[in-house]
Amino acid sequence: MDIQELYSENVRKMKSSEIRELLEVSQQPGVISFGGGLPNTGAFPVGDIKKIVNDVLDEEGDIALQYGTTPGRKKLIEEIISMARKDDIKADIDNVIITVGSQQALDLLGRVFLNEGDTIFLGSPTYLGGINAFRSYGADMIGVPLDDDGMDVDKLEEKIKESRKEGKNLKMIYTIPTFQNPAGVVMSEERRKRIVEIAEENNLLLVEDDPYGKLRFDGKPLKPLKAYDENVVYLGTFSKILSPGFRLAYAIAPEEVTKKMVIAKQSIDLCTPTFTQSIAYRFIKEGYMDRHIPRIIKMYKRKRDLMLEALEEYFPEGCKWTHPHGGMFLWATLPEHIDTKEMFKDAIKEKVAYVHGRAFYVDGGGSNAMRLNFSNPSDEEITEGIKRLGKVIEKKL
Amino acid sequence: MDIQELYSENVRKMKSSEIRELLEVSQQPGVISFGGGLPNTGAFPVGDIKKIVNDVLDEEGDIALQYGTTPGRKKLIEEIISMARKDDIKADIDNVIITVGSQQALDLLGRVFLNEGDTIFLGSPTYLGGINAFRSYGADMIGVPLDDDGMDVDKLEEKIKESRKEGKNLKMIYTIPTFQNPAGVVMSEERRKRIVEIAEENNLLLVEDDPYGKLRFDGKPLKPLKAYDENVVYLGTFSKILSPGFRLAYAIAPEEVTKKMVIAKQSIDLCTPTFTQSIAYRFIKEGYMDRHIPRIIKMYKRKRDLMLEALEEYFPEGCKWTHPHGGMFLWATLPEHIDTKEMFKDAIKEKVAYVHGRAFYVDGGGSNAMRLNFSNPSDEEITEGIKRLGKVIEKKL
Repeated sequence: MDIQELYSENVRKMKSSEIRELLEVSQQPGVISFGGGLPNTGAFPVGDIKKIVNDVLDEEGDIALQYGTTPGRKKLIEEIISMARKDDIKADIDNVIITVGSQQALDLLGRVFLNEGDTIFLGSPTYLGGINAFRSYGADMIGVPLDDDGMDVDKLEEKIKESRKEGKNLKMIYTIPTFQNPAGVVMSEERRKRIVEIAEENNLLLVEDDPYGKLRFDGKPLKPLKAYDENVVYLGTFSKILSPGFRLAYAIAPEEVTKKMVIAKQSIDLCTPTFTQSIAYRFIKEGYMDRHIPRIIKMYKRKRDLMLEALEEYFPEGCKWTHPHGGMFLWATLPEHIDTKEMFKDAIKEKVAYVHGRAFYVDGGGSNAMRLNFSNPSDEEITEGIKRLGKVIEKKL
Repeated sequence: MDIQELYSENVRKMKSSEIRELLEVSQQPGVISFGGGLPNTGAFPVGDIKKIVNDVLDEEGDIALQYGTTPGRKKLIEEIISMARKDDIKADIDNVIITVGSQQALDLLGRVFLNEGDTIFLGSPTYLGGINAFRSYGADMIGVPLDDDGMDVDKLEEKIKESRKEGKNLKMIYTIPTFQNPAGVVMSEERRKRIVEIAEENNLLLVEDDPYGKLRFDGKPLKPLKAYDENVVYLGTFSKILSPGFRLAYAIAPEEVTKKMVIAKQSIDLCTPTFTQSIAYRFIKEGYMDRHIPRIIKMYKRKRDLMLEALEEYFPEGCKWTHPHGGMFLWATLPEHIDTKEMFKDAIKEKVAYVHGRAFYVDGGGSNAMRLNFSNPSDEEITEGIKRLGKVIEKKL
């Protein structure tokens, strides 16, 4: 049987995530990894979940173990709406769909909005999973530079104008305004207001991915883009504040968009796990979430501080890095002649791992940069790992 | 903002499941529904799950709540391989991918194999979720009649020949050989051997969907198609033998196909819930599954018998129905002049619901048929509901 002959054209667009392979290498024994984007296992509320699961099974096992509706459990959606209201986001039940991680929301948006060759604008650098999802629909991705205030909206406008001139079919702006992955930066208030206008003026769907917004260590919270314009599609997740193993996230979108996403999801997986939805519902409703988030913040703030101290101490002159006020990542830039992709081999020899910068760019760039995750490693690993990495860099100078 | 203008061409191919709307009507208070395809909530092993969840959280909460790998937890895959071996299916770790329900496996197969307009052959009637998944990729679906021995393989060969002559691009045969949804019939051994040959001779991917195979009430088990040919893609699920709310299923496929499905899944949702995978693993490993399946069989066998008795007693002459040896459905055929889609309104007035036959056909047919689910309703509801339905039919004679 010749299976090769049967594959669809989609297969051509699929690319195994390069990072996944790197991450496998970083799991070798003794390697300290700043590579993954994982929460700290110590930040999982195991005891709370245990208590809640028992209640769920005692009181509504028949619902929690049965098929659910495609948009998600109404009770959980109502709690999500209450949470969103605190961020000045207005939403009704018909605006929300619960997804299997935010990755599914990105995939659904790809399916509902992208034809092959359609243009979308995203950060340079940006989230790899976003790149993968949009690439699988054959999107034409245009990178927009970031600085310390997030995506450069003037450059965004320029790129939109250029692309229009070239006759491209413009569809979407994808951005992570708060504690951006990978750069760790926050979009300024002024730019937030402006990007919403740019989307409206150009009739582009503005997708705001916000996995880290609740993990703010210091500084004043800024309103999400969604608070400025109901047409924004807002993506939230429980992966960073409860458990990624539950695979629970949500999109808040204009009703007609949610409806299309729901129809798409029907044929994709029928529904998101009812069991984990039922746990998450009680986790919010019964006040566990409000008590738990400060604990995660305390832990990650300490880890960020440790990493910043270690960088100050061990990274050679000529290196710089972002000082994130929240989230899970910081972004280090080395002297220009150092290729971080090449240097990875040396790092692994010294038993330390990171993700090289180029992985997060759709159009080159980042060759001398790296993403460093501070949420997952232990405190000791942070100090020791940065020390090792400093040595590796020193040898390249 | 004009969102309409931004939608992709995919949206055109999406169709909200007609059945979902019918099912909503059937949830009106007092309505006895034979419509859904739901397990009985009394068949959920709530106490076992409670015990297991506590162990999972005590012993490996850090893994069960964290991100997992895209193919799925290795421990669970190994248990699936052992289960499959009992059915004469040989598989290695690289042949298996854990999916968010079998629906996701169907979607992944669509993505990996189907270009717009590609032809696939499936039962007339067949599973609605299959029709929806393949339609969303713009497949050209050709129905192949069933009889008491399952899909008519001679007709299948004819249709393949015809389609080749018409210059169609043939890709796949999709079949549910055991306790077919919706018809409840089982493909004979002779036909099983033949359909595997037909797939090989014509270089078509043969997809065997087997959600009900373990729910056999009587008669001798037959080998799955996969046991005859390793090129078959076999789909199994935990939805009918453990909990659909866990959203856990699996595909066993040739390694190169599994690999493509894994790459596709990376951009679709990263991974299947680690939490429910960890529970399912122990459910099998610790022997709960082997003790639990006979309990479900006992319950559903009783319900099938009750439904057959009630049909015998209350359905008017001129009606016939299948006598399934397992699964969750039977298929009733009424006198030809009765349109079951039209009759649905009358049935709802009498507070009883079913799914009309036409919903399961890609090319017409089934207008005087209906699918009756016996797993979900209570024993009393089965007798009372069939009595009501008998009255509705009588008025149409």
